Amino acid sequence: MPKTAPLSPDLHDELVGVAHLLADAARPIALQYFRGAGQDIENKLAGDFDPVTVADRLIEQKMRELLAEHRPQDSILGEEFAAYEGSSGLTWVLDPIDGTRGFISGTPTWGVLIAVGPEDGPLIGMIDQPFTSERFVGTPQFAQLQHPSGDRPLEVRKLVDLQDAILFTTFPEIGTKQEQAAFNRVRDRVKLARYGMDCYSYGLLAAGQIDLVVEAQLNAYDIQGPLAVIQAAGGIVTNWQGGPAHNGGQVIAAGDPTLHAAALKLLQSDGAV
Amino acid sequence: MPKTAPLSPDLHDELVGVAHLLADAARPIALQYFRGAGQDIENKLAGDFDPVTVADRLIEQKMRELLAEHRPQDSILGEEFAAYEGSSGLTWVLDPIDGTRGFISGTPTWGVLIAVGPEDGPLIGMIDQPFTSERFVGTPQFAQLQHPSGDRPLEVRKLVDLQDAILFTTFPEIGTKQEQAAFNRVRDRVKLARYGMDCYSYGLLAAGQIDLVVEAQLNAYDIQGPLAVIQAAGGIVTNWQGGPAHNGGQVIAAGDPTLHAAALKLLQSDGAV
Repeated sequence: MPKTAPLSPDLHDELVGVAHLLADAARPIALQYFRGAGQDIENKLAGDFDPVTVADRLIEQKMRELLAEHRPQDSILGEEFAAYEGSSGLTWVLDPIDGTRGFISGTPTWGVLIAVGPEDGPLIGMIDQPFTSERFVGTPQFAQLQHPSGDRPLEVRKLVDLQDAILFTTFPEIGTKQEQAAFNRVRDRVKLARYGMDCYSYGLLAAGQIDLVVEAQLNAYDIQGPLAVIQAAGGIVTNWQGGPAHNGGQVIAAGDPTLHAAALKLLQSDGAV
Repeated sequence: MPKTAPLSPDLHDELVGVAHLLADAARPIALQYFRGAGQDIENKLAGDFDPVTVADRLIEQKMRELLAEHRPQDSILGEEFAAYEGSSGLTWVLDPIDGTRGFISGTPTWGVLIAVGPEDGPLIGMIDQPFTSERFVGTPQFAQLQHPSGDRPLEVRKLVDLQDAILFTTFPEIGTKQEQAAFNRVRDRVKLARYGMDCYSYGLLAAGQIDLVVEAQLNAYDIQGPLAVIQAAGGIVTNWQGGPAHNGGQVIAAGDPTLHAAALKLLQSDGAV
């Protein structure tokens, strides 16, 4: 299913409904292990610190069960288990707990990321934050921050000048030395750079609170949920070459296209990105 | 009133009660301006980015009114207005919104800091996070994380080895180049270093989620609330020389005294701190 073929209203509603089922199922599992005694951490990569919690696996398992029940014809790309090949042309892209370092530290910055769409990028995305009960939702039809106290529309801020912009990223190291240098060129031009917010950064961008998120070395499941949310909220998400970002790698998200172009130019200004 | 003279049970309860009044009054004001249209930011220091919101001033004003009503005999040291000299020997130390950069960015990391005690350091402290409804409370009698869903005791984690420790600070720059180098010596030895949590870091330390917080260039009102919470939860807070931290400056907080000593040695290891 190419992206140019819009979802029918019925299919849109069905997919949004299933995405909510997944996010609803993830919340209690995540919270059971968050700041809790049940936390069991292992290193996925020997010598590197990439913790994955029991919750991570339990959540993705549960999500896959729900998809097998409600959308067996769709493909699944998840962080924790092997990819599943469906027949519908639609793929669910799942990060059960994005921001495991934040999760094990007890911060309210990690989230559950869900996206679904055709091969050329997600159409529907969610960033769910179980601890604060916030759910950032983006679809071709709407963009909302949903919360038990009420829902409100998500809309990016149209801030144009780098010198007024707020920039977020997760780690000051970003990635390679070259990627860090590229990031620093942007950082040195903005009003404020902040760190440590994990996927919550993308929610804040969609909500018009901040203006730029720049990251590197992302996986597809790190960015597809946020990407759909930010697009629905009127923002722009690309790689550092200005091309599609849904496969991960080097990612830049902005509220305003002029600001995006200015930041992109700085990222590329050593000619080596 | 020297610190060695313990608070009477009646005075303890009265002060805790008044601290709750202040924190309760701060919450709706903070939330009214958080992520809201009412936000009005100005630069306190020309040329530097130190935003203070209208909420900051409204909250401290309200707190001072409540203190004038309930504890007129006590001194007040606040971020926003001139110090008030009382007669009781007790001083209230107030930071109406600690983490204004986080506040304007929409992150759930800022907090309302309240402390009260004699000249040689706070006895009762609170870190309140209006957005998550979390209130970290520490007194000579108890340490609790209070939340509408229930209260639970706060207790630091007794982790001894730097290589297993989680370290937090607000900015990677920390302070001067020398302070940054000192911080980096600790950072390079721990399992995980994270940024951007503002005063929420100290709450996570008191809750046993993380092991170390290292910061520099703090004011007294940045640290006194957290200091009392962490001490009540069994932790240790000093300056980088190992002396009292309640006047601010360079601060290190740890759950375990052995870990504290090891980190302190690294901070001091260029002989220049």
